[in-house]
Amino acid sequence: MARHLVECIPNFSEGRRIEVVDAIAEAIGAVHGAAILDRHSDTDHNRSVITFVGTPEAVVEAAFAGIRTAAQLIDLDVQQGEHPRIGAADVVPFVPIEGVTMDECVSLARTLGDRVGRELQIPVYLYEVAATRPERQNLANVRVGQYEGLKEAILNDPDRAPDFGPSKLGKAGAVAIGARAPLIAFNVYLTTDDIEIAKKIALAVRHSGGGLAYVKALGLLVKGRAQVSMNLTDYTRTPIHQAVELIRREAARYGVAVHHSELVGLIPQAALVDAARWYLQLDEFVPDQILETRLGDALKSDT
Amino acid sequence: MARHLVECIPNFSEGRRIEVVDAIAEAIGAVHGAAILDRHSDTDHNRSVITFVGTPEAVVEAAFAGIRTAAQLIDLDVQQGEHPRIGAADVVPFVPIEGVTMDECVSLARTLGDRVGRELQIPVYLYEVAATRPERQNLANVRVGQYEGLKEAILNDPDRAPDFGPSKLGKAGAVAIGARAPLIAFNVYLTTDDIEIAKKIALAVRHSGGGLAYVKALGLLVKGRAQVSMNLTDYTRTPIHQAVELIRREAARYGVAVHHSELVGLIPQAALVDAARWYLQLDEFVPDQILETRLGDALKSDT
Repeated sequence: MARHLVECIPNFSEGRRIEVVDAIAEAIGAVHGAAILDRHSDTDHNRSVITFVGTPEAVVEAAFAGIRTAAQLIDLDVQQGEHPRIGAADVVPFVPIEGVTMDECVSLARTLGDRVGRELQIPVYLYEVAATRPERQNLANVRVGQYEGLKEAILNDPDRAPDFGPSKLGKAGAVAIGARAPLIAFNVYLTTDDIEIAKKIALAVRHSGGGLAYVKALGLLVKGRAQVSMNLTDYTRTPIHQAVELIRREAARYGVAVHHSELVGLIPQAALVDAARWYLQLDEFVPDQILETRLGDALKSDT
Repeated sequence: MARHLVECIPNFSEGRRIEVVDAIAEAIGAVHGAAILDRHSDTDHNRSVITFVGTPEAVVEAAFAGIRTAAQLIDLDVQQGEHPRIGAADVVPFVPIEGVTMDECVSLARTLGDRVGRELQIPVYLYEVAATRPERQNLANVRVGQYEGLKEAILNDPDRAPDFGPSKLGKAGAVAIGARAPLIAFNVYLTTDDIEIAKKIALAVRHSGGGLAYVKALGLLVKGRAQVSMNLTDYTRTPIHQAVELIRREAARYGVAVHHSELVGLIPQAALVDAARWYLQLDEFVPDQILETRLGDALKSDT
């Protein structure tokens, strides 16, 4: 009796009117089988992120409820904020967590997109793994020109035609719906305040600089320390320990060391277990040896 | 709504008559709120280990049911095997897993001991953290002379007086009931077939040789490789990574390296997470950042 669990992390273009975010969260949480794990609003970005999980059916239902409520309460003609956006519900990614494949998440994105297009008359762009055109794998391409620019472009540029829904923007704008691997936000602080070292290391480590395939990285100065700030976009392909050890080696080349690391937000248990396995050289380890995993299975088969 | 979970790992002096072990396991598994996670019988040792978890009330009830069934079906006057033993149910440790303290497990050991002494008329010795005399913290002292020796000693040696039950052994013998931290069986293989190196490292690493406080270790030759075989008796005090890194350093001093490691049986998730945190230098990490932990809490509060 394995669980089938999908995570969904929709971003909404409202981070100031808390009653609006409350209403969206309530619509999501009211769906049976969906549970909200985390919620974060940013007033400068004027944007909120709601993290929830549930069965495949429940997450589609809950995401639809969130998109519908956002479309009713957020007007892109007046919304302003630092963060680029094309719609009230701006980005809706599905992430496979347990007993679900990436292909199934792609198919959830299509199911939801079809329904949003038909029932809410909102244009939908499929992105990342769910993308129907290679250039739409990159969310930034989908959001070019933002709401204001897309309003014109969608009318006559065939490259901007939506995957579902009308080729016309209302006040709720459009929504990007996709599927992706879990993202891990991981920062490494160095024993120096020299931001140039952090920038050089970030360039060496990130994919776009010739580094690791599933790493995005920036060099920053945070709390008086040089920091290599990373997004690990697929820890099953580029594991955390590989990124950290490469940073450690690059840092040594500049005469500095890793002071400490920082995890922003949530991390799948498997990503930490992978790191422990690698460092401890546990070649034959199977996840079933984790007491809590065995426990979960025993308690589930009990019902 | 936190869970309250205790693990219990009773050892029974029967590893050959599978129908007897089946009957004991059935008695344990029949208790509502207890779930069997693992079961292992050894014919040479003529001994079986059953691992189960449950609420504090359920584990006491299930352990009692297992002890009663073992006492009915195992006769120590005829039982033979390589493993030292004093009773049909030989050793019954309680281990805190989630939402339960060590003190609570000590009190469960006393509750069970009292009941076994009164209702089954079996002598009970409290051991490890539950011990009432310092010398009984070490299980080996409780088992001196085994069933045959204890049969005489219990009659007239005040040092062998049980904590509960009569000062007289029946055919079911006596039982040691205790509380302890989770035990991790962890083996490190070296890049050599020289068992002397493994023995020297084991001596340096283990507590009795002047090494780490919660480590027992032996040097062995396994599958053609020198192996440092460890029992980590309290990973919260002596973490795995500390033991592994000390072995790595000692190995380097003899010109060899760690080939790979091996985990025997189950491990608490926290022990692996601790290792990942240490190697990745995640100073500010909190377990609540693990997606599955957040998930478990969300799904629990859902009901």
